Amino acid sequence: MLDGLFKPRAAAVIGASNNPFSIGQIVIRNLLEYGYQGPIFPINPKATHIHSLKAYKSVLDVPDPIDLVNISVAHKLIPTVIEECGKKGVKFAIVHSAGFKEVGPEGLKREQEMVALAHQHGLRIYGPNSQGVHNSDPAVSLYANFTFCPMKPGNISIIAQSGGVGEMLNLHLHNFGLGHRMYSSYGNEADVTMPELLEYFGRDPGTKAIMLVVESFKEPRRFLEVASAITPRKPIFAMKTGRSAAGSRAVASHTGTLVDQAAMATAIFREAGCVEFKDTHQLIKAAVAASLQPLPQGKRIGLITNTGGPGIVAVDEAVDLGLELSTWSDQGKQRLQESLIPEASLNNPVDVVATANADHFYAAIDTLLKEPGVDMVQIFMVTAPFVDLDAVARRIKEATSQATKPVVMAIETLERRDLIHNLRQSGVPVFEFSEDGIRALAAGARHHELKSRPREAAPELDVKREAAAAVVERFAGQDAFLPQADAFELLAAYGIPVPRLAAVTSRDGLAAASARVGFPCALKVDAAAVVHKSEAGGVALDLRDLKALQAAFDKMHDRFAGQQPTYVVMEQRPAGREVIVGAKAAAGLGGLVLFGLGGIFVEVMKDVMVGVAPLSRPAAREMLHGIKGFAVLEGVRGQPGVDLDALEDLLLRASRLVADFPAIAEMDLNPIFAHPRGTPTVAVDVRIKIS
Amino acid sequence: MLDGLFKPRAAAVIGASNNPFSIGQIVIRNLLEYGYQGPIFPINPKATHIHSLKAYKSVLDVPDPIDLVNISVAHKLIPTVIEECGKKGVKFAIVHSAGFKEVGPEGLKREQEMVALAHQHGLRIYGPNSQGVHNSDPAVSLYANFTFCPMKPGNISIIAQSGGVGEMLNLHLHNFGLGHRMYSSYGNEADVTMPELLEYFGRDPGTKAIMLVVESFKEPRRFLEVASAITPRKPIFAMKTGRSAAGSRAVASHTGTLVDQAAMATAIFREAGCVEFKDTHQLIKAAVAASLQPLPQGKRIGLITNTGGPGIVAVDEAVDLGLELSTWSDQGKQRLQESLIPEASLNNPVDVVATANADHFYAAIDTLLKEPGVDMVQIFMVTAPFVDLDAVARRIKEATSQATKPVVMAIETLERRDLIHNLRQSGVPVFEFSEDGIRALAAGARHHELKSRPREAAPELDVKREAAAAVVERFAGQDAFLPQADAFELLAAYGIPVPRLAAVTSRDGLAAASARVGFPCALKVDAAAVVHKSEAGGVALDLRDLKALQAAFDKMHDRFAGQQPTYVVMEQRPAGREVIVGAKAAAGLGGLVLFGLGGIFVEVMKDVMVGVAPLSRPAAREMLHGIKGFAVLEGVRGQPGVDLDALEDLLLRASRLVADFPAIAEMDLNPIFAHPRGTPTVAVDVRIKIS
Repeated sequence: MLDGLFKPRAAAVIGASNNPFSIGQIVIRNLLEYGYQGPIFPINPKATHIHSLKAYKSVLDVPDPIDLVNISVAHKLIPTVIEECGKKGVKFAIVHSAGFKEVGPEGLKREQEMVALAHQHGLRIYGPNSQGVHNSDPAVSLYANFTFCPMKPGNISIIAQSGGVGEMLNLHLHNFGLGHRMYSSYGNEADVTMPELLEYFGRDPGTKAIMLVVESFKEPRRFLEVASAITPRKPIFAMKTGRSAAGSRAVASHTGTLVDQAAMATAIFREAGCVEFKDTHQLIKAAVAASLQPLPQGKRIGLITNTGGPGIVAVDEAVDLGLELSTWSDQGKQRLQESLIPEASLNNPVDVVATANADHFYAAIDTLLKEPGVDMVQIFMVTAPFVDLDAVARRIKEATSQATKPVVMAIETLERRDLIHNLRQSGVPVFEFSEDGIRALAAGARHHELKSRPREAAPELDVKREAAAAVVERFAGQDAFLPQADAFELLAAYGIPVPRLAAVTSRDGLAAASARVGFPCALKVDAAAVVHKSEAGGVALDLRDLKALQAAFDKMHDRFAGQQPTYVVMEQRPAGREVIVGAKAAAGLGGLVLFGLGGIFVEVMKDVMVGVAPLSRPAAREMLHGIKGFAVLEGVRGQPGVDLDALEDLLLRASRLVADFPAIAEMDLNPIFAHPRGTPTVAVDVRIKIS
Repeated sequence: MLDGLFKPRAAAVIGASNNPFSIGQIVIRNLLEYGYQGPIFPINPKATHIHSLKAYKSVLDVPDPIDLVNISVAHKLIPTVIEECGKKGVKFAIVHSAGFKEVGPEGLKREQEMVALAHQHGLRIYGPNSQGVHNSDPAVSLYANFTFCPMKPGNISIIAQSGGVGEMLNLHLHNFGLGHRMYSSYGNEADVTMPELLEYFGRDPGTKAIMLVVESFKEPRRFLEVASAITPRKPIFAMKTGRSAAGSRAVASHTGTLVDQAAMATAIFREAGCVEFKDTHQLIKAAVAASLQPLPQGKRIGLITNTGGPGIVAVDEAVDLGLELSTWSDQGKQRLQESLIPEASLNNPVDVVATANADHFYAAIDTLLKEPGVDMVQIFMVTAPFVDLDAVARRIKEATSQATKPVVMAIETLERRDLIHNLRQSGVPVFEFSEDGIRALAAGARHHELKSRPREAAPELDVKREAAAAVVERFAGQDAFLPQADAFELLAAYGIPVPRLAAVTSRDGLAAASARVGFPCALKVDAAAVVHKSEAGGVALDLRDLKALQAAFDKMHDRFAGQQPTYVVMEQRPAGREVIVGAKAAAGLGGLVLFGLGGIFVEVMKDVMVGVAPLSRPAAREMLHGIKGFAVLEGVRGQPGVDLDALEDLLLRASRLVADFPAIAEMDLNPIFAHPRGTPTVAVDVRIKIS
């Protein structure tokens, strides 16, 4: 529990000083300014008081118990300070000080020693190299942070790895007239982790939605578990920065995390039911709408405008984001017709036209909100000089205040900023651009879609785990690719259909091998040095008899002499629709699984879905259906579709395999030949690397 | 010339009244308020004066010459008013009144009659159903419009079909502290057309960049010509609204345009060198940067930040938008190292860190601007409380004021709005979000890329135009698909490689046909009713001898009995990489050409490029290279690439064909088999519809 961090009964500031630019001074000022509801104890070796507060030389001199300390002294003083805090029984230390993991191995060692020392005393470390926390709950009113963004009560909580980005989220909520609930920018995550913070915010009844911005995951599996438990109840609007390879370099220099985790982030966010953003604007606007309005219960949008063009812009944006344009019931149509000006357009968007008065707006909004086919409404309004706008605002408030569906507005105005302010005060999010409102609503709709998905555990599968373990163990620690026969054996142990095959090392073995495999067959070279077998001339297909097999063998034998090859004689499978299933170990998570159409679709179009192993049935289905080329699997232009159940099963089994054996560093089933129901879906080539 | 519209020597307002909500009254007020530099004559049948201006019963009563009138009387009064204006020698009439094309056929007739009447007198009509125009040139200061957005001198001109969207562009420039140069929202475009307006703005020396928002093109070909002549000198930032099918329905009800023109708009914009936007925010922000800063001369960006996270966000956005991250010269690196704080990060982004002072910012900016590998710079700054921000702003101004490369900023601040204001005043565009500045710069870079493309006329091609004309004439007016043999004949006339083939109507003809074509051959049914031949069992491939051909014929003959089929015996071409070339007639433009990889890539992935016929060589090349799957044509994974010159030639010929024969309503060459150089690229199936 993080109550000691977010609801401390008393706080001390170590490094408090009278230097107005020191972090310690600023933290004291913030605690005072925002009216922290507990005693504050400045700690300073020399000063007698800081501001109006009596100062102490050490926390040990403070007569009262202390839950939380903020520490901003130089890192070389930290061990002493931590020791004293431990002895004092402090529960949490927010360490602002830098000079830890982010500066390299020496700093990392310092960091680990600090945490170990703290844990000896039951003290938890937040940071180091961190900003701090807010809790705007009036019963606490804690601003234990050295920055300048305002804090007032709200219902959105913020978690940001980067303080600069976190403050930006704060700031723009503020610019919108909104407060926030809790805030955390957690620095190096040496002890208190992001998932812990997230879990705490998830349980906070005052938090309606969470904004989360991460650069990297220290505990991806834990994050997945925690977030998955929150999203059925409240939205997590999430963004991963450092998505590009170049961005990842920046991350590397910024937080010491070296692996590009963009695809993993997308997979985890989706699996956990988080709405992912790639743009800070949209993230903030989604939070604004969620803060003020109910969340949509579907994706059908009703649009109202009093001028044509921006209505069209709204339609474009809604369609681009996958929303559906509502249609009205006969009753609704009739009411619109009876209530609006004859020039009004009664389709979607409803164009009430520029001369529409307060009653016209009311009728349009009220009608749409009562329509069963409407899940959310956006109103665009240009402030026409010949309309009583205050009356319009009043009626809009009336129409929306009891609504159980979200309503957002975009207003185009020069002078009536007061109108925007008033509407916002009455709970209607007002944006500048038609696109903004649509995006904010679409985020809510995506949350609804994600939380409405069936949730299941990964299924039990009939697998031969011990047989698989035997293969993995044979090669463990070699950090190399498995020979073909072993790789197929591993797949077969997990029930993944593979061709009949037999390994051969010499020409003499061909007869026996082909007797087992049958004709027509294929011959493939199997040597560590030959990565792209086909290109290297290491694959001979459709060999009809032993003579052809021998001829192919002789050719390869010449070609690969000196590379110590072995060979595999393999059943010639009928060519089907090529798909690929891949997997990769991911530290702290287990495995990631990739699915895509084979060949060009993966390599050129990058049309893949990535999921977290082991997959549940719904997650596997989501991956199959989620690729852009899904129609190809369903069957296009008279071609029959492939057996999707078989593909789903194969994907489940592959994901279970990598989840069960973390030593599988990389796995590629490429291609898999998928066929219409009746013909087995078979992995005809495989590469597996065991670490 | 539109001088009479934008620089009138005198203006009258017909429909001027003392009703403060009437359009006539508002236009008078706007003309007065913005200090129009000519006399204003209110026209009203009863009033003696409007405001302080003497009123006249008719323009014919006005003693002085009049260049421009604004008309807002009911449409039934229009003919009389136009007649009087004509007699008076008025040059332009801005018709605000509605009730014309937008209300249906009757209104369209009214509109055409109005224009005809006006032209009898040499009077030009602007509108009807239009807002009006601005010219902020202080020598004119014309606000001949009934809306409320402010006008002050600036260098961005605005053309918007939708008044609501146009005002939005105005308003947001204003909110940014900027003015605009000229403004036009042109309504029904009955006489004065959008391309005329664009041409006028293009020639205006006071216009540095143009923002254009259209819903539909009335004269797409003319737009293409006009815009193409402007973009080498100044950017056109263009947006088409009503992109989605649903949006198009909204357009249809809004302006009476029925055809979805989204793909055409993208093709025209690209061909004309316009930077296309799909988001009004980004459009405005690009214009802001272009207004205040030089345009970039490349796409390499240097980033500066004083806090890590937003720097990473900037990198992500830059990479997403195809910008390149600059690297520094040794000299540049050295200067950064010598000038900045030791904690600073000297990569791209340069992180000067939060404690950086004015000199540090100056050094970073000045260094980057002098780097040969930097085309543009974005600076992100969080306003740290312990830094002299006024000094920072001064030094930023010094560093940037003489720059020939664009610099934009994003500032995160709570209280220092004054700083943003001051920086904007000194010519630095300051945005709220890191992404905004990047997008604005990327738009400038895209303009540079577009204008740097080679420009060539469509090439002369050796085609047999008369032979082609003979085929087209045989079928003109039938609005039907050509028989296969005729369609291939048409292609062959334009030098497009086709298989050898012979049409047959009966079993008896097979021997002669196959003697001409040779074996192996294919047999295809050719009947109007059979659209998807393969799916219908109307294609037999790889027939090795006459017996096989006859068997295939017999089967089809049974299958298609009653559909009056004919048949084509066709050379069996070796299967190659499938590509598709399509074309469609486009009213007012000529033809549009489509290129994509065949089959799934077009049907499922929608990976196509569309261009305007006839194509120039660079335009054809751009289409080939522009599909996402281009790597497939180049050759992937050891597969050889296809003959790109042959594909380019085929695309040029197809585009020439549809440009030369507007009667070709639709054409599909699908599939075309492309091969590595040496094997001809051949269209093996074709459908051509003649209207």
